Parts: sequence; structure tokens; C-alpha cells
Amino acid sequence: MTSEIKQQSIDDFINHLASGDPTPGGGSVCAVMGSMSAALISMVANLTIGKKKYLSVETHMQVLLEQATELNEQLLDLLKADIAAFNQVMQAYRLPKQSDEEKNKRNTEIQSALITATEVPLSCAEICRKLIALSRQAALLGNTNVASDAGVAVVAAQAALRSSALNVYVNTGLISQPEFKKSCEAKIAQLLAGADSETEEIYALVKSKL
Amino acid sequence: MTSEIKQQSIDDFINHLASGDPTPGGGSVCAVMGSMSAALISMVANLTIGKKKYLSVETHMQVLLEQATELNEQLLDLLKADIAAFNQVMQAYRLPKQSDEEKNKRNTEIQSALITATEVPLSCAEICRKLIALSRQAALLGNTNVASDAGVAVVAAQAALRSSALNVYVNTGLISQPEFKKSCEAKIAQLLAGADSETEEIYALVKSKL
Repeated sequence: MTSEIKQQSIDDFINHLASGDPTPGGGSVCAVMGSMSAALISMVANLTIGKKKYLSVETHMQVLLEQATELNEQLLDLLKADIAAFNQVMQAYRLPKQSDEEKNKRNTEIQSALITATEVPLSCAEICRKLIALSRQAALLGNTNVASDAGVAVVAAQAALRSSALNVYVNTGLISQPEFKKSCEAKIAQLLAGADSETEEIYALVKSKL
Repeated sequence: MTSEIKQQSIDDFINHLASGDPTPGGGSVCAVMGSMSAALISMVANLTIGKKKYLSVETHMQVLLEQATELNEQLLDLLKADIAAFNQVMQAYRLPKQSDEEKNKRNTEIQSALITATEVPLSCAEICRKLIALSRQAALLGNTNVASDAGVAVVAAQAALRSSALNVYVNTGLISQPEFKKSCEAKIAQLLAGADSETEEIYALVKSKL
């Protein structure tokens, strides 16, 4: 199932999410929200390209489309990576812990799995911060008929970024290497810094165009 | 396709969203974000029910699960309704407009379609405001191992609410009946009031539990 999550129907995905299975969970939701944000930016670009009224921003919109498409692909990969990372953590916790040797091995495996499980939401957060910036271009220069879609894009990217931060904290809380923990927390703080005010600006810009 | 949107794979949905087709668009994204929020609340409830440590909140969690499940069903219906409403607006705009009679008929159809197209995001916003409240219960009383999921739930519900507001404005901007327009704008303002601060409180509560 892990490899096929993006092939699942929305209905099945929602049902699995709601169930008592630990995956998919919040990490998958971050990736899907980010992916929907990227897709809406692409939609705005696609509905701007080729329109006479927007000829002056045609090249800009083509670049925007390329960037959003690439970030979207990365997010759909993270959707899969998030579940794999979570399962790896779960497997490590299930390792035997009788002898000292087993305890050491288990601990090493847990810590290694937690590092991957932290890197996934960090990557998601990084992409979503970029999507906030791309949403501004979609809102500023895109077809005004779909300005609200640029607005939904920025709000979804912000939600995915803030959600990813929670998924970073939940893992760093369990990581024993103080340096890795510190560097991850510094990175997420940097990605969050200014993101809310940037989102508010773009939301207000969109609202002024409706 | 309209009736089968929730049966589409995530990948197909994202591709259709990104395309130059007007549907699915921002309205569908609102419904999916709301639905993921509801599903995460259900997940927290499901991972709390039956656990010895949480016996004292068992009944509370069962009620929470029922409420989240019902709101989720409503959101999945809105996913379909949003596309139908949008298509109805598009069809009305395509009606002939040569004679005065045709113009009148077209205008009546457009206005009628716009009313439905405004009611859908209003309903979505209403549900998402309820989900913010339910997220608080999940965060406060649910299994702390999945506290981050309650945090993602509140952020997703807020994003869906704020996005729905944009979809209300985009339609009320075109509605000619001043009373309907005014009542919708008052309703969405009421739904938005305090939602951001409520979300921040819940987000901070979740962060404190990680």
C-alpha cells in the first residue's frame, strides 16, 4: 500500500486516514495540502498562458508553471517517503530489547529512523515556503478570473508548512543527538519566520481582486 | 466525472486540479482540506478509544468520532456539489443573449446558479468552523501520542475555512440581489470571527504536548 498511496482514491485515502491505523496520518495530510497548493498555482498559470490579455506575463507564467510542477512532484514523492519513514520508526521500536547488544542495536535503529522521519517534514516545509512565494506571483500576475484559486493556494501552503513544523517537533523531541535536533529546530524556525505575514499579504491581495 | 470525484485517485485529482480545466478548483481543495481535518480528528478518537489510559474520556471520544464522521460525509458531498454548482454557473453564462427575452432568461439562470455556488462554500465554512472546535477536544483529551495529528487537523480546518471565504466573496461579487449578498457576507464574517485566534490557541496547546 505504501508505494501506491497517490494511486488511492480520495475516498479510500480519507477512510484510511480516519481509521485507527497509524498511517496515513498528519504527515500525509501535509504533503497532500502542499500538493494541492502547487496544483492550484499550476492551474492559475495554465489559465493565464495563451490569453491575449496576459501576453506580457506569458514567459513569467511558463516559469511559474514549471516551478510549481516540479515542487508538486517532490511533494508527491514525500507523500510516499513520509509513510515509509513512519513505518521504519515503528519497526525499529518493535526490535528485541533483551540483551545490552539488542538494546544498543534497537536504539541505533530508532535514532536513525527518527532522523529520516524528521527530514521528510523538513523537506515538505521547505517546499511549502517556496509555494507561498509562488502563490504571490500567481495572485499578482495571473488571470484575475482565478485569483481566488491563488488565494486558496497560499492558504493551503501555509497550512502545510505549519503542519510540517508540528511533525518536525514530534520527532526532534525523541532525537538524542543534540546537534541534529538543534539544527532541525533552527531550520524549521527559519522556514516559519515571516511565513504568516507573507500569507496575510497575499490573502489580502487576492481579496482586493475579488 | 462530476459524480465520481471522490473515487478519483489522489494523483488524478492533483493532475486535473493543475490543468487548465476550470474544475476541480479552489472549492474542491476546500472540501478536501476540511475532509482531511475531519478524518484526522476521527483518527485521534480511534487511537484513544479502547486505551486503558484514556478510559475516562472514552464516551467523549465516541461522540467526537461520530461528529467528525458526520461532518466528513457532509464535506465529501460538498466536494461533488461544488463542481456541480460551478458547472451550472458556466452553463448559464453560455446561454444565448441575443433578444431581450434571452438576456433576461440568461441573467436569471446566472443569478440562480451563483446563489447555489455561494451556498456551497458557505456550508463548507460552517462545517470547518465546527471542525476547529472538534480539533480542540482531540488535542485536549485525545491520545497524546497523536497530538500532532490534532494540530494538523486544526490547521487544515482553518485553511479550509479561510479558503471557503474567498470562494464566497468571488461569487457574492457577482450577485445582484443586495440582500442575499449582504446576508452571505455577514454569515462568512461571523464564521471567520475568532477562528484564527481559536486556531492559534489549539496550535499552541498541541505544541506544548509534543
